Amino acid sequence: MFGELTYLDNSAATRMDERVLAAMTPYFLKTYAVATSQFGYSAGLEARDALESARATIAGALGARPEEFVFTSGGTESSNTALKGVVVALERRGGKGKHIVTSRIEDFPVLASARSLEKQGCQVTYLDVDQVGRLDLDQLRDAITTQTILVSIQAGNQEIGTLQELAAIGRICRDKNVLFHTDATHAFPRVAMNVQELPVDLMTVTAHLVHGPKGVGGLYLRQDTPLAKWMDGGFQEFNRRAGEENIPGVVGFAKAIELVTPEETARLQGMRDRLIERLLQIPHAQLNGHPTLRLPQSANVSFRFVEGESILLHLDMRGFAVSTGSACFSRSLEASHVIMGIGGDHERAHGSVRFAFGRFNEAGDADAVADNMADVIEQLRAISPLGKGES
Amino acid sequence: MFGELTYLDNSAATRMDERVLAAMTPYFLKTYAVATSQFGYSAGLEARDALESARATIAGALGARPEEFVFTSGGTESSNTALKGVVVALERRGGKGKHIVTSRIEDFPVLASARSLEKQGCQVTYLDVDQVGRLDLDQLRDAITTQTILVSIQAGNQEIGTLQELAAIGRICRDKNVLFHTDATHAFPRVAMNVQELPVDLMTVTAHLVHGPKGVGGLYLRQDTPLAKWMDGGFQEFNRRAGEENIPGVVGFAKAIELVTPEETARLQGMRDRLIERLLQIPHAQLNGHPTLRLPQSANVSFRFVEGESILLHLDMRGFAVSTGSACFSRSLEASHVIMGIGGDHERAHGSVRFAFGRFNEAGDADAVADNMADVIEQLRAISPLGKGES
Repeated sequence: MFGELTYLDNSAATRMDERVLAAMTPYFLKTYAVATSQFGYSAGLEARDALESARATIAGALGARPEEFVFTSGGTESSNTALKGVVVALERRGGKGKHIVTSRIEDFPVLASARSLEKQGCQVTYLDVDQVGRLDLDQLRDAITTQTILVSIQAGNQEIGTLQELAAIGRICRDKNVLFHTDATHAFPRVAMNVQELPVDLMTVTAHLVHGPKGVGGLYLRQDTPLAKWMDGGFQEFNRRAGEENIPGVVGFAKAIELVTPEETARLQGMRDRLIERLLQIPHAQLNGHPTLRLPQSANVSFRFVEGESILLHLDMRGFAVSTGSACFSRSLEASHVIMGIGGDHERAHGSVRFAFGRFNEAGDADAVADNMADVIEQLRAISPLGKGES
Repeated sequence: MFGELTYLDNSAATRMDERVLAAMTPYFLKTYAVATSQFGYSAGLEARDALESARATIAGALGARPEEFVFTSGGTESSNTALKGVVVALERRGGKGKHIVTSRIEDFPVLASARSLEKQGCQVTYLDVDQVGRLDLDQLRDAITTQTILVSIQAGNQEIGTLQELAAIGRICRDKNVLFHTDATHAFPRVAMNVQELPVDLMTVTAHLVHGPKGVGGLYLRQDTPLAKWMDGGFQEFNRRAGEENIPGVVGFAKAIELVTPEETARLQGMRDRLIERLLQIPHAQLNGHPTLRLPQSANVSFRFVEGESILLHLDMRGFAVSTGSACFSRSLEASHVIMGIGGDHERAHGSVRFAFGRFNEAGDADAVADNMADVIEQLRAISPLGKGES
């Protein structure tokens, strides 16, 4: 059953590429030692070389210098470190206030870190976005006060895919002398993120959404950015992040980044565009997010008069895996804060479905899921207490 | 070269068992989906089953219930979560003070978390240990005040291997109504850690020291123990630890725990005992740590008139990997705080060598390294400015 799956939830998890596993395997079984200092034994030096080579690869893909990139256990840790580390660092320096600006549609690591900081005396402004999920730059500019220390705005949205104007946001932050963090977990590397062009101070990235291993991520940190250590312990990662280095993990992360090509991303975007075109032919279907300024790999469509989890279960029986912004599917047991954040009502959130393509999707997948969606929606509406879709 | 290595640094990292990799592989390549709620698609339910099965295995090995065990990215994160999470939880409840008791010879995650908490207004008592690394229980009892909220004492020391009297420490904490965390990263599962018998409230464990994957650990958390969420974000792990679940990692962790047997541990202890016996025949050699109440897999011996990093490099050339408490080897660039903590001087710390056995060591390894140590020490003393060892 699972072998025949058409997997379209690549914004939640991806199948690891076998070439990534092949790259990792020697570091599980052969070069398994810790990365030692230059005074260490040979096996430790080999591990250190692998670590630094992986760091150079990913930093290079970001246009950063290796020492500006720190490995973490994933995007969640990176965003926790960015927000909490900046607040503590600036608090210790004294001076400015404790105000953070973010948006209502950020992913949970940023939102929950912000809420946690609120409990510790920070003030947080959660900016609204428009009906396609874009931030209003004038509102951002107005929200930044003399007390503001950090702006955290994502690169591309986890559900609806809308991209933000990072360059413009970064320039505003520079003008106002405020640090800028972006959660780029869904964007990098399919959307170019070059820190030589983007005025970004901190950036969260992760491996597991591009066919790399789970449990590995990273934080770009522009030189001289104040950041208190958050994961306390040993002296790893230039003494910025403690914990035994996950050498197989970082090797796999680097390999995963190397394997992503613009051609592949264009292929995913082609499937995604075809799918959107087909899905919008279904009555009472509505695209969520910006029509063009969006992540290349994903689409999000709401279907009136149906529940997302019913769609999900029916598609599952037909061999397709998708996700929904419906409450029951979510571990938060709340309707998608993203769909609500772009002015959607509960029905639109409950009827939203996200389709996310990855390397292992094939040309026919878009039409196959579109055909099945049309069928499933029609079936569900025929029995729906929410209405027949004919009103 | 590396293939012929006799690796004796299993307290730093271990070679992953091929059976662990075999157990993980399907979760890299086949069941790669996120663990979904019961309303999720089939692939997500399979992932959830794997996650919960791994949790049940490890909780079972601890004598805990599955919901008392949370997966993390490793021992460092677990100890950060334990110390910081307890402080924040009790602060939010109001009431008691902010005093923590720990020891001077704890590993970096506990010590650095404690120091970080000091900067945030906590008071921390760092208890001395005796010359073999044991805590004085009367001193512990006296150190606990009405302001104390947490005692954090390791199960077995990372360098010298000394075991602490966890049951007695736990009883003192219970009597005083203070929470008790133990860092058991080096002890579990080779030393039995059953929470039905041990009055421990929180316990840090990790996978990578018993031939499991790097980047995975766990935190045992007795039911109703107050703990604020530290890794903020999504609602994973009973809403106690955010972040995409590392399904291959936890599957590998569980497999690694299953593969450790008392017979194997006895075999390592036999090699360890043989090595100690041989090493103490070298002139001016001194065992660090308790002679019998110690971790079964490791030994730590100081050699006067020689530097640890010289020993390490000479052994490396002969195909042996060991570690040393000498400053240059350490990323902290300080001599071992553990050897200093048991009353050693700088020379004893700099001349200390740790030997840690693992599954892939063979019967002859103890004698082989002992023969080479005798030879290396003699060579080094012949050219040492510290003295000839004949004084």
